[in-house]
Amino acid sequence: MEGLREVPANWLSSEGILKGTDIVCEESALSITISNGSDILFPLGMTMRTPGMDKELVIGLLYSEGIIDSFEDIKEFQIQINDVLVIIPRIEQKNITDFQRRISSTSSCGICGKDSISNLLHIHGPELSQSISISSSIINSSIDELRNNQYLFQKTGGAHASGLFDIHGNLLSITEDIGRHNAMDKLVGSMLLSKKNMFSDSFILFSGRLSFELVHKARRAGIAVLIAIGAPSSLAIDIALEHGLTLVGFTKNNNMTVYSGRGRISH
Amino acid sequence: MEGLREVPANWLSSEGILKGTDIVCEESALSITISNGSDILFPLGMTMRTPGMDKELVIGLLYSEGIIDSFEDIKEFQIQINDVLVIIPRIEQKNITDFQRRISSTSSCGICGKDSISNLLHIHGPELSQSISISSSIINSSIDELRNNQYLFQKTGGAHASGLFDIHGNLLSITEDIGRHNAMDKLVGSMLLSKKNMFSDSFILFSGRLSFELVHKARRAGIAVLIAIGAPSSLAIDIALEHGLTLVGFTKNNNMTVYSGRGRISH
Repeated sequence: MEGLREVPANWLSSEGILKGTDIVCEESALSITISNGSDILFPLGMTMRTPGMDKELVIGLLYSEGIIDSFEDIKEFQIQINDVLVIIPRIEQKNITDFQRRISSTSSCGICGKDSISNLLHIHGPELSQSISISSSIINSSIDELRNNQYLFQKTGGAHASGLFDIHGNLLSITEDIGRHNAMDKLVGSMLLSKKNMFSDSFILFSGRLSFELVHKARRAGIAVLIAIGAPSSLAIDIALEHGLTLVGFTKNNNMTVYSGRGRISH
Repeated sequence: MEGLREVPANWLSSEGILKGTDIVCEESALSITISNGSDILFPLGMTMRTPGMDKELVIGLLYSEGIIDSFEDIKEFQIQINDVLVIIPRIEQKNITDFQRRISSTSSCGICGKDSISNLLHIHGPELSQSISISSSIINSSIDELRNNQYLFQKTGGAHASGLFDIHGNLLSITEDIGRHNAMDKLVGSMLLSKKNMFSDSFILFSGRLSFELVHKARRAGIAVLIAIGAPSSLAIDIALEHGLTLVGFTKNNNMTVYSGRGRISH
């Protein structure tokens, strides 16, 4: 299975030492270059990621960063193992410069440059649904559903997952990566690629902690309800409050903590 | 306490809804600029971090990236809340350019640019000790010791910790941050700042998963034994094997998995 690697390992326990082969999550660099198809060629940098769904990852990243506004902005994708060339005919120098200041996207991040936060936050997406309502019992049951579908995590114990659920708790899509932000980019990218507009009436359940950037990515995609199993950062909460996004953390054992947008959670 | 923030929260459980104030881990941007003290001024970018030990964080980061080789390379530090100016008299343009390609250091990363991995790996540090030996029982007991001293984590559930232990299991130093890489940079920086050379006969216990970059940071600092509670990535193992560093993952409940350098662990 893509994204996995077998490695020699020694297990030490009270029983003694066991030698064998373990399976770990793959981490490798993906280089991203953008072209307008003729004279412009911009190396954008690289991201550490788990191979698999590279196209979705790049689409999600470019969308999150405001480089594209839809999949239609992309004319062509050329992927060679760890190198991606994206042809965006109407790309402008300014967009690239802004992007390069921010890109710095590695296994678990994607922000760089002093103005990056405020710049990012001025990249808007679809209006967030005010009417969507998710019941806390649906959220609680979605935890098991996510866990049961985290194949990479089940094999390695070392991958994050982003799951898209409808309001009835059906898992619509799940993406995994060693980097938390990549898992979110892959999910958003896969929706843009499939041209399905499923974000307005669904919620995202995230397997780990929430940084401000994950909140930005959700907001940019039009996700009104972002649920995490782990803790949110102060800035994640600030951004959620400012933009009216529902943010929930520490979701486990039928408990959850709502930090923003409580009105969308029925209980 | 620094690095903490109080936020309004609603706890939803089977008991009903409880309103109150929660404490979360602070995430904010630190801007780093380098100067040679006269004509050169380089904005290096910024990192998302938990405030506290900013000086240590920057020293550790600059050392890890090969910009400085010791604390003595730094003439002066000027810190103003979220802005740091570092005066390095003998700084060269090339070092800055190399660094800028890589910096992209955010809350949980620190690599950018296509050549960044191989460049990073050519930044060497002290020789790793071949003779150090750590008993598995010491490692097991160090887990509790780390947990008992993770103040930020205890308050927020949302911070990583990097702990330096001697071979008898005494905790020499512990650093915490919302970003995994920052916790390591703060630890390395604090040792460089105190001019204590404690890395050659000690090990680091890390609270989470291990990316390749954390292995690089340990190696650069002269740490021969890196233990994690979480999973390592494929690249983390590759780097550890290549450089002869002992790498251990999934350390809990008296079990651990040794991926590299088994000879330094007695069992």
